[in-house]
Amino acid sequence: MYDSIIIGAGPAGLTAAIYLARKKIKFLLISEDIGGQAAMSGNIENYSGFKSIAGVNLINKFREQVEDLGIKIVYEKVVSIEKEKNLFLVNTEEKKYISRTIIIASGKLPRKLNVSGEREFTGRGVAYCATCDAPNFKNLPVAVVGGGNSALDSVLQLSKYTKKIYLINLGDELIGDAIMQEKVKKLGFVKILNHKKTLSIEGGITVSAFIIEDAKTGQKEKINVSGVFINIGWVPATSFKIPVALNKEGEIIIDKNCRTKTPGIFAAGDVTDIESKQVIIACGEGAKAALSAYRYLNNQ
Amino acid sequence: MYDSIIIGAGPAGLTAAIYLARKKIKFLLISEDIGGQAAMSGNIENYSGFKSIAGVNLINKFREQVEDLGIKIVYEKVVSIEKEKNLFLVNTEEKKYISRTIIIASGKLPRKLNVSGEREFTGRGVAYCATCDAPNFKNLPVAVVGGGNSALDSVLQLSKYTKKIYLINLGDELIGDAIMQEKVKKLGFVKILNHKKTLSIEGGITVSAFIIEDAKTGQKEKINVSGVFINIGWVPATSFKIPVALNKEGEIIIDKNCRTKTPGIFAAGDVTDIESKQVIIACGEGAKAALSAYRYLNNQ
Repeated sequence: MYDSIIIGAGPAGLTAAIYLARKKIKFLLISEDIGGQAAMSGNIENYSGFKSIAGVNLINKFREQVEDLGIKIVYEKVVSIEKEKNLFLVNTEEKKYISRTIIIASGKLPRKLNVSGEREFTGRGVAYCATCDAPNFKNLPVAVVGGGNSALDSVLQLSKYTKKIYLINLGDELIGDAIMQEKVKKLGFVKILNHKKTLSIEGGITVSAFIIEDAKTGQKEKINVSGVFINIGWVPATSFKIPVALNKEGEIIIDKNCRTKTPGIFAAGDVTDIESKQVIIACGEGAKAALSAYRYLNNQ
Repeated sequence: MYDSIIIGAGPAGLTAAIYLARKKIKFLLISEDIGGQAAMSGNIENYSGFKSIAGVNLINKFREQVEDLGIKIVYEKVVSIEKEKNLFLVNTEEKKYISRTIIIASGKLPRKLNVSGEREFTGRGVAYCATCDAPNFKNLPVAVVGGGNSALDSVLQLSKYTKKIYLINLGDELIGDAIMQEKVKKLGFVKILNHKKTLSIEGGITVSAFIIEDAKTGQKEKINVSGVFINIGWVPATSFKIPVALNKEGEIIIDKNCRTKTPGIFAAGDVTDIESKQVIIACGEGAKAALSAYRYLNNQ
């Protein structure tokens, strides 16, 4: 039996672990992987304390800090959480764990375009993570789908490998940070296509082209590319069964102290209904969830 | 006229500044000083990304990051904020500024004991910040009043200068992190006195003693010390007039996205009614407040 189980090892889960470890309570940190969305980011320039740091390097610093406190991540996939009186049963694919509190910090997964060819060509030209896959497209034509910071970040990362980049934006203008938009425009070679809907992705063994439609004129166009990076947002990673209230988007509803509507279950970071999803915010929320869980345990 | 004015340059205000600067909006960062409570901390070991860093060094990193974005802190004291239709007038002791939004991140000030001698001997033996004043008490007997993390932190800092340390705790046991309590107990020379109330501080030119009373037996005792560090918590720095709702403790009431009950005014960090006050939390809240203000501006 544990005092707490943290699910997820991104910025929120890792920070929650730092706080629980310092409280010397008995807890587990369960996750399928480490770093979450942050580990897929290129340079992060808005995390207080680091002018510029690669996402994977920042996550490594978090990981070292957690390991220094003697915490080991349990790499398992959570299938469901069940509530039994004042306790919680966490079922992973391998095991069952019992805990007095739960901190859900499972983050988000890339949103799918849901167009023909997307699934078929995933890993064969269709990608969701420039940090992971940009180096595979050296001097090849690629498209990035999206208009926010993660799409702009993908363009910047790809620009180190290729100058043949299309940015396919469904909106009338880009919505990422002004500073990011400037960086992309300054490159000079990125073709920004606004109000364009992506209809399908085509190819043979790998991607060879994709079809877009002008949202205003309805005109269709085929563009030859070897890669399509899809960066149109994220969906909360709440596919496992959880006894908590979710909003319409599937995000966990929390109060300002990271309590869910189920006493004993806390949530933090991108999986919650906080409007802004950022690494520094997820860290702050992770600390809050840990301290709220600690307060709950002390009051039992 | 500004799009936003941030009041306070601690972790919350500085992080809000980083976020607003990247949005390229016109804003001011007004503060009496830099760093807030964090700059007074000894080693911070629970800020994700740094295993251990002196508070003042962490704040320096924040400051450099802010300055690199071209932001200069306006060192003035805010006297009041007035709401006029959709705009806000910020009155400092020197000037008046008009802004479309306000982000209050003015933090907290040390709570006073409110005992005889406290005010008289402040700066002459009575201190609130071990980081600032511990070196003045080399080999001298000192008392730390408090039982939480900031009191324990003061003890640890003082222990590098003197082995004659009393820890005067009003409660039945210490309430700081287990890891901090262990460190203090490991020193071996700290006299921890629980359930003791501090009644008065005495001296001539400087502090020479203080009087405590046992909260259970009522027995009084005089202890000779040269210094008394008071670390019994903080009160929100909301002494200037603000048109926002406060709770009983004087903290600004916010929602989970850092909006106050007054549209256009946002608040972040220790000045708010968030339960847990921590550097990493204040940073996350600062980012949230900035992004909520940005969203508000875009919807006007």
